[in-house]
Amino acid sequence: MEPRWKGKGSEAKALADPMSKLVAQLQSSLIQTNTCGLLSGCSVLVAVETEHADLFSHSCFGQPILTAEKDKHWFQLGMEEAFYLCHFLKCLKIVGEDNCPKDDGELWHYMKSRKATFPTFYMAYSHFRKKNWVVRSGLQYGVDFIAYRHHPSLVHSEYAVLVLSEGDDDTNGRLRLWSDVHCTIRLCGSVAKTLLVLSIKKNQCSVFPLCLESYTVVERTITRWSPKQNREDCQ
Amino acid sequence: MEPRWKGKGSEAKALADPMSKLVAQLQSSLIQTNTCGLLSGCSVLVAVETEHADLFSHSCFGQPILTAEKDKHWFQLGMEEAFYLCHFLKCLKIVGEDNCPKDDGELWHYMKSRKATFPTFYMAYSHFRKKNWVVRSGLQYGVDFIAYRHHPSLVHSEYAVLVLSEGDDDTNGRLRLWSDVHCTIRLCGSVAKTLLVLSIKKNQCSVFPLCLESYTVVERTITRWSPKQNREDCQ
Repeated sequence: MEPRWKGKGSEAKALADPMSKLVAQLQSSLIQTNTCGLLSGCSVLVAVETEHADLFSHSCFGQPILTAEKDKHWFQLGMEEAFYLCHFLKCLKIVGEDNCPKDDGELWHYMKSRKATFPTFYMAYSHFRKKNWVVRSGLQYGVDFIAYRHHPSLVHSEYAVLVLSEGDDDTNGRLRLWSDVHCTIRLCGSVAKTLLVLSIKKNQCSVFPLCLESYTVVERTITRWSPKQNREDCQ
Repeated sequence: MEPRWKGKGSEAKALADPMSKLVAQLQSSLIQTNTCGLLSGCSVLVAVETEHADLFSHSCFGQPILTAEKDKHWFQLGMEEAFYLCHFLKCLKIVGEDNCPKDDGELWHYMKSRKATFPTFYMAYSHFRKKNWVVRSGLQYGVDFIAYRHHPSLVHSEYAVLVLSEGDDDTNGRLRLWSDVHCTIRLCGSVAKTLLVLSIKKNQCSVFPLCLESYTVVERTITRWSPKQNREDCQ
């Protein structure tokens, strides 16, 4: 499936400002301003000046929070986003509710304790982000993530992503019943997305940060096979 | 949601020939002709004369099979359909691949051995049929059944049905993950069906035919709650 750009000029705009550049801009800006995020439940809240707010929006990190403050802009980051900025891009410090800075290991354990699927979801999230894909929640389509080639204002998302954890007792996983497979593929088709299944095989070692190394991610797209469109005489 | 009739006059047609009448016609015709079905894998095959073929079609049992025979019409019945005609309507005899007639108990055990979900699926199927709803496979929508108020040529299906088995170790069930719930509801919405979940609570007794008695079926419809449409000032 070809990317579906939103209107004229969107593709050129995306080419002129590749996502790698926008993320690098956010990264250096956060480092320069020594920006700090506040851990709050399953989110991290970040307050930035007006000039930096656009960088969050353009690089698609977090959701803006509406407040009455004039010069401060608040962003709410999901756990995967926050950990990526903190651990991989090394541009965000995070303090706990007790106002003490948390190191990466403490954060990892905290986030894992709040959400059992955090390790595999983080691996999936960072897998996409490292390839400069934009990742958003797949809540409204009943999947784990949706992936965009560039900013959602310029292009429709191309992939509906399900994250499966391979190897361990994956009784909670999706796509274990044919009816679920059919349901998911039919929905993806009707919203013009390709179903992409990421199978994450965890490392034997469960100690942070070693557990992040040498895990494997297998990408599989699943599409409907239509007998009508695949007959010999149609080729 | 109101029933969506297919074109003008369909509702009147359905009222003139209620499903209960069409099924009764099939039933008495099959009894008179002493019709026999042939067990073949997970299906039952039935051959009928031209004049009786319409009764199968009108009452929505089985799928017609195209053959070169002129005066014989073949129908392929699913296991739930066949067992309903045989055990509940008592109008179809079934012989095995060894050409020996099977009694209801033998059939029950055979069908259960071919498909572990047969008992709960049969309870769901018969639950609808007894209320004169037409039931078809939900394969293309990723659900277990779809239910029609009358013949599919007259009306669009209203319910997408998932059958859940309550009580026992239901690790294979649907809707155990929020993402699955979201996916299913979103799909049902896009094809204008209401998601109907049938929870079947099995009887303690597992011996046929006692296991068919006193099971309970709980019907639940699941719809999306939209905050926008449910604000106080919108009411």
